[in-house]
Amino acid sequence: MRTPLCDRLGIDLPIIGFTPSEHVAAALSRAGGLGVLGCVRFNDAAELDRVLTWMDENTGGKPYGVDIVMPAKIPAEGTQVDLSKHIPDGHRAFVDRVLKELSVPPLPDDTDERAGVLGWLHSVARSHVEVALNHPIKLIANALGSPPADVIAQCHDRGVPVAALAGKAEHAVRHVENGVDFVVAQGYEAGGHTGEIASMVLVPEIVDAVDVPVLAAGGIGSGRQMAAALALGASGVWMGSMWLATEEYLQTMGESVAMQQALVAATSADTVRTRIYTGKPARLLKTRWTEAWAAADAPEPLPMPLQNLLVSHAHNRIHAANDPSVVSMPVGQIVGRMNAVRPVAEVVADLVSGYEEALSRLDKTR
Amino acid sequence: MRTPLCDRLGIDLPIIGFTPSEHVAAALSRAGGLGVLGCVRFNDAAELDRVLTWMDENTGGKPYGVDIVMPAKIPAEGTQVDLSKHIPDGHRAFVDRVLKELSVPPLPDDTDERAGVLGWLHSVARSHVEVALNHPIKLIANALGSPPADVIAQCHDRGVPVAALAGKAEHAVRHVENGVDFVVAQGYEAGGHTGEIASMVLVPEIVDAVDVPVLAAGGIGSGRQMAAALALGASGVWMGSMWLATEEYLQTMGESVAMQQALVAATSADTVRTRIYTGKPARLLKTRWTEAWAAADAPEPLPMPLQNLLVSHAHNRIHAANDPSVVSMPVGQIVGRMNAVRPVAEVVADLVSGYEEALSRLDKTR
Repeated sequence: MRTPLCDRLGIDLPIIGFTPSEHVAAALSRAGGLGVLGCVRFNDAAELDRVLTWMDENTGGKPYGVDIVMPAKIPAEGTQVDLSKHIPDGHRAFVDRVLKELSVPPLPDDTDERAGVLGWLHSVARSHVEVALNHPIKLIANALGSPPADVIAQCHDRGVPVAALAGKAEHAVRHVENGVDFVVAQGYEAGGHTGEIASMVLVPEIVDAVDVPVLAAGGIGSGRQMAAALALGASGVWMGSMWLATEEYLQTMGESVAMQQALVAATSADTVRTRIYTGKPARLLKTRWTEAWAAADAPEPLPMPLQNLLVSHAHNRIHAANDPSVVSMPVGQIVGRMNAVRPVAEVVADLVSGYEEALSRLDKTR
Repeated sequence: MRTPLCDRLGIDLPIIGFTPSEHVAAALSRAGGLGVLGCVRFNDAAELDRVLTWMDENTGGKPYGVDIVMPAKIPAEGTQVDLSKHIPDGHRAFVDRVLKELSVPPLPDDTDERAGVLGWLHSVARSHVEVALNHPIKLIANALGSPPADVIAQCHDRGVPVAALAGKAEHAVRHVENGVDFVVAQGYEAGGHTGEIASMVLVPEIVDAVDVPVLAAGGIGSGRQMAAALALGASGVWMGSMWLATEEYLQTMGESVAMQQALVAATSADTVRTRIYTGKPARLLKTRWTEAWAAADAPEPLPMPLQNLLVSHAHNRIHAANDPSVVSMPVGQIVGRMNAVRPVAEVVADLVSGYEEALSRLDKTR
């Protein structure tokens, strides 16, 4: 299971794994893929620096990458306190009422509360790039559009290729015009921010539209799906959801037991594409929390970055509540195939053996 | 490009093509696939009988099938006149206003107007089955759920296997329990009635859930996509949209020039999943007609079969208007790959050569 992408990135398997967990990222890199650490959760660049130092010490010299979030349309800058002034009282009241109805308790008084995500402010994302380029990263990916030209130049000066996600062929073309080196074709079925065109249609469309390697994202969780992605013309796969149900994920996010229970129990029909997480359409696990926002009396979600600031305290309470029915978590339709919490290496081994089986099956059609 | 399905159906290529056009169906059967004629447009069973006699004379002895529409939930029975009483005046007024705004002229007085589709009433669909079983058909497919047990038995008594469409694994399991012989896994990206789970996730899920051959539907329009479908475990593909942009389609539906122009111009982003065509969610080409129904002042679509009765006269006017911007046509996201009107045999030849190329590319990953 080798493609030219493997040589380009110095990896054994064309499996690129996006994850907020350094334990998952390191395990995937050690298993032969490329672990890509999501930086958006690091409001403090110094914390990211410490985690990347840990990565340097725990990837056994194997390549890894990072993922930043710089929306193509620059969101309002500001501290959490400044920005919070723009959140309507009605929205706050709705969140409070829903949490009460869902029996999500308040946080204990002594909780050191995690702040809302600011990582998609350009100022914060730029600090992530600065820090990451001081580590031996092999890829920087951007989740929402092309990074600014000077950021791409900065990465190229350091010999680091840049990837960008695209949900339409025209976006992919623009990325490549802007200097992006790889395109991640993110299909409708993917978790997190996603468009409306499904992988089966989107991947070959983007492959035909650009002359750079394309990674298929959305719906990839087995070797059969990986074979399908490569049949469609992808040079590799970009996977995010599958790593949420791994043992390594718990090592980073120790308190995510209820979330993993919810993911393992869910079917492929148990996701919803909604703006309630960030203000932009993103696919989440369907739970009583997302259903409350789909009710007739729910307000329209706010634009990015206000919506996440609105719900960040609720997310902390939901997380602490540890109730599988009230999880708030981005995940793709592949969640239906996530039926156990496994080590990363086992997920990778299954991808490889399933891929070989699929190719053997195709051989018989000749 | 052979699978065990080919032997089972007596065909050379595992390409099953759904189409309302007997010219397309016959051309596909002659090209080595299985043409499946959609019966829902035949309110009069005698007309279907005449068309199937034409098929018998024009398929060169090659196998073909038919597709009926029997919703699992039985809709209200009645003639068009009876049923029309249930359509609210406000809905009629909305349709009239939109047609005026879109400059769709009234029909000439002497038009022999086509009635609304009644083919999904069980009484009418049963008449289709009766007629079809007197022809040498090799497959009966049902578009909305399993056919009733006695209809399945009737087909099996005549040695005709039955296929049913499914948008969820649980529906596929139920179909097989009911005696269905093949499942068509219809992904989100497909045209017409469709669910929310994309083909990349749905196809392997259904393959794992049932022990009968599965046909992949949704997003298939090239050999690469066909290879992807077979990599996912499908025994063949079920294609509908691609045949709309063929020369043979025009032979049946001579006045569809504007529709074909609109399809050829559309991108994969130019579809919408909506209830305005039949009352159930179906993917259509996005045009000024669908946009009018998406506007804030549009009424909720009516349940099946009322919604199609409501819009059937509008469909006739839209069709006669011959304006590519006001088409009402079910089509999948694959419409982005439909960039020319071609003969059916050319579409099939491209599928075969693209499939071989995809397999050669996969070989190099070993």
